[in-house]
Amino acid sequence: MEPKLISSLDAYHRLKLDADRLNRQEFHLKYLLEQENRFERFSMRRGDLWFDFSKQRLDQKTVDHLLELAKARETVEQFRAMADGQKVNTTEQRSAMHMDARNGSHPEMNQVNQRIRSFVQDVGDIFSDVVVVGIGGSYLGTEFVYQALQSSCKVIRPLHFLSNVDMDDFAAVIKKINPQKTLWVVVSKSYTTMETLANLAQVTAFLKANHLEPRNHIVTITAKGSPGDQSEAKSSGEDNGDILASFHMFDFIGGRYSVTSAVGVLPLSLCFGYPVIERFLKGCGDMDQHAGNAEPKSNMPLTAALISIWNSHFLEYPAQAIIPYSSALSRLSPHIQQLYMESLGKQASIYDSRVEYPTGVIIFGEPGTNAQHSFFQLAHQGAPFPIDFIGVLSPGSTKIWSTYQGVTNHQELWANLLAQTQALALGKTDDNIHKVFEGNRPSSTIVIKDLGPESVGALLAFYEARTVFEGFILGINPFDQFGVELGKTMAKALRGQMALKNGSPDHQFDVNDPATRFYLNELFKAGRD
Amino acid sequence: MEPKLISSLDAYHRLKLDADRLNRQEFHLKYLLEQENRFERFSMRRGDLWFDFSKQRLDQKTVDHLLELAKARETVEQFRAMADGQKVNTTEQRSAMHMDARNGSHPEMNQVNQRIRSFVQDVGDIFSDVVVVGIGGSYLGTEFVYQALQSSCKVIRPLHFLSNVDMDDFAAVIKKINPQKTLWVVVSKSYTTMETLANLAQVTAFLKANHLEPRNHIVTITAKGSPGDQSEAKSSGEDNGDILASFHMFDFIGGRYSVTSAVGVLPLSLCFGYPVIERFLKGCGDMDQHAGNAEPKSNMPLTAALISIWNSHFLEYPAQAIIPYSSALSRLSPHIQQLYMESLGKQASIYDSRVEYPTGVIIFGEPGTNAQHSFFQLAHQGAPFPIDFIGVLSPGSTKIWSTYQGVTNHQELWANLLAQTQALALGKTDDNIHKVFEGNRPSSTIVIKDLGPESVGALLAFYEARTVFEGFILGINPFDQFGVELGKTMAKALRGQMALKNGSPDHQFDVNDPATRFYLNELFKAGRD
Repeated sequence: MEPKLISSLDAYHRLKLDADRLNRQEFHLKYLLEQENRFERFSMRRGDLWFDFSKQRLDQKTVDHLLELAKARETVEQFRAMADGQKVNTTEQRSAMHMDARNGSHPEMNQVNQRIRSFVQDVGDIFSDVVVVGIGGSYLGTEFVYQALQSSCKVIRPLHFLSNVDMDDFAAVIKKINPQKTLWVVVSKSYTTMETLANLAQVTAFLKANHLEPRNHIVTITAKGSPGDQSEAKSSGEDNGDILASFHMFDFIGGRYSVTSAVGVLPLSLCFGYPVIERFLKGCGDMDQHAGNAEPKSNMPLTAALISIWNSHFLEYPAQAIIPYSSALSRLSPHIQQLYMESLGKQASIYDSRVEYPTGVIIFGEPGTNAQHSFFQLAHQGAPFPIDFIGVLSPGSTKIWSTYQGVTNHQELWANLLAQTQALALGKTDDNIHKVFEGNRPSSTIVIKDLGPESVGALLAFYEARTVFEGFILGINPFDQFGVELGKTMAKALRGQMALKNGSPDHQFDVNDPATRFYLNELFKAGRD
Repeated sequence: MEPKLISSLDAYHRLKLDADRLNRQEFHLKYLLEQENRFERFSMRRGDLWFDFSKQRLDQKTVDHLLELAKARETVEQFRAMADGQKVNTTEQRSAMHMDARNGSHPEMNQVNQRIRSFVQDVGDIFSDVVVVGIGGSYLGTEFVYQALQSSCKVIRPLHFLSNVDMDDFAAVIKKINPQKTLWVVVSKSYTTMETLANLAQVTAFLKANHLEPRNHIVTITAKGSPGDQSEAKSSGEDNGDILASFHMFDFIGGRYSVTSAVGVLPLSLCFGYPVIERFLKGCGDMDQHAGNAEPKSNMPLTAALISIWNSHFLEYPAQAIIPYSSALSRLSPHIQQLYMESLGKQASIYDSRVEYPTGVIIFGEPGTNAQHSFFQLAHQGAPFPIDFIGVLSPGSTKIWSTYQGVTNHQELWANLLAQTQALALGKTDDNIHKVFEGNRPSSTIVIKDLGPESVGALLAFYEARTVFEGFILGINPFDQFGVELGKTMAKALRGQMALKNGSPDHQFDVNDPATRFYLNELFKAGRD
């Protein structure tokens, strides 16, 4: 028998009643936090990652009802089906095998990794810098890991990123590199991504202007047999002369889950060395094991997914912030923003029905303490939203130049992290209404041991598994992204109009929307000045 | 007679009915866009900035009712009172004079600017790099403008930013600079900001380790008479020996409105030269003139404020995205996030009553087209939120290495911007439910002529005025930020506990919260490893 959508489950309706209950003043977080052993009961650990949801607005009854949702949706079974390679990406009839990219079980992917390992060894000192040319899932995960590992691992070759189709990005990148010593890694599964190909056109022209052969400076990460696939072309006798080498990515791993495939492994290995990235993969794999094998009630990413559903569906928070108290993790929020919003921003269920409840919320964030000096005013005294606070026990940079007021800067970060979770939860009364803090603002605290590759891998895989679990529970497909297609189609039509005008200045734009016509005319007028 | 809160106004209730009406299918944006002359009626221009709200979910009747709100709240009058120096920051009994920082009307601020101009001239080639040490409003605006102007203006001295109290930030900054040739600009109004002083302690130790005199390398931007004020100390006979020079900021300009005061003018002038920043101030001043003098119905930032209220109060969108199709504007969203969420995330009215309606929403964003490959899936097929699309007619980098598919990269950006506004508004039917786009997603389009200092100034002042207008209409004070205080107080207590433990390892933490105690112990355990 097929599991039903959660809105038709008894547990769902019990949770609605739970929300009514928890919304009463007597269940304010300041009282919930006084429950006996609350921290022990509502926190978990796996290896070097702690997940603490004791400051969420829930009690044991809520947790039990949430676990019923998970059970009724056969969530762990779905997760294992994914691990077994079943076609859990139902709308596209594909498997979702990002976990195989790090557990060594997939011969083809192992082979790609072995080729990457050899390639990185062979590169020697030919290249001093690497530019990753890719957008969205072909770039955000790699950028996050690059930023995260820099303080704990030696950078052999710096990475640069060319994502947006903006010449300012290109101009900024070429200012930083020596063209003779730079390798360009072009990442596109289909090799039809407009932004990436437009940037590749700039790269090729730039190399030629510098009297360099593209074939000596460009490698691709792409699907087998795509127009950018060198190895395939070679084996069929047609040498794709513009490419030094190709590394395969596979249609059973979506962009936003692809950082542990060649997409991330090649550039990150060029940067930190393959052994470091192997440790990163191990950290991911360890969290995958936990997600696939732990009982629901002690399963960290599953619990995090249930809390996300509790907050968005029942307490009706429309957004969630992710605030890492570590600058090394400053690109975590943009990466999870993509991972989560692209995976769960869906309106149709896997049963082809319209889902009548919210599916995915807005994710945003900046590192702490910066965020405290930016938007935390609204967090404390405006419309509330739940927050994931992320702490790192051992700092990245260990050199201490000075202490201030008796503490190190790293301790100062922690004093702020801990103070914020309490201030948001507890609040404060005051005779001056402008100084009243209502409190009752929920948060989770996620702690990793350090900024080493294993910890960063565990953190990444935690959020990946959380996202996948949430999709399974909600009954939506976390692996497709049909919502990006309409804009692409419409952009194509406009591009055609622009190309016609470039070819013949008298061309009158054939577009219906008066605003669009106006802007096109202004754009071409400005171009003539 | 005192104006009332909007919820007690007739127009407010008419707008509630408008919202019921606009929520009906027959008012889907695809039909609204067919209204005659809609683009002409619902777009405006001032100088080189266009504001187009034709793709918002409203009609003339709605606009009229919104304007009634503005009128009843005496919004323009409040704005003029602000311009006249009246104490519109009522909770702190201060004026809000950020506009005076750019219209040359304030003798003391003019004097500061003249001192900055001379200082920048005198610096000559003593310093090759400038590090801004500051957080929140002491940094986000400057960073935005620095990023924005780089493609159109020559960088004389690069800026670097040290904001977070994380040694990784400090380590990253000192890797990029030559200590002998670096000027550190420390920005703190009160000179009590913990993060900034902790970073200053690192700077001082670092300079000494490099056998350099802090007094030759550190300038401060601070309030007259603060502990960091060199000029004041000098005039009273006590030389503040650690500081080369001080430039004053004033309590009548809050941090988030301060980029056109010494806070931004000093570092940006060191970077681009004073004349460029004068042009930037002129661009701001021109928009201020418009905001203060234009009739409500043709007042761009006032209209933008009313639309924001329409979207958050009546159509009940909980967030808004800002998506600039220009990498040069990539730090616009974080800056406006602070400006807006800190100004409007309030629960108490200026009449000391609890405001029972939402006041300020979440602002987030990344540049387009990157955002399209990240969270736009949710924008198209998940819970909708309004978006400000920002376009730039003339590109920053004018060198074209190559075209692709007949268009330049700059044209490709525009094809995407225009396509997205249409795709979000119109939607698309499909037999496959996973490919259905419901459309009816509202957006505004804001266009600036180029990335020159005047245009960037106009864009900044547009958002500042919009924010202030929104506060005036909502009846809240957009200039205070009491919501950040509780966390600071609690952090202070924790810092004290840490300092005790640093002094005496046997110290038992005196904290009530078991989670906090646990993390403190783990933190100190990790520190011993």
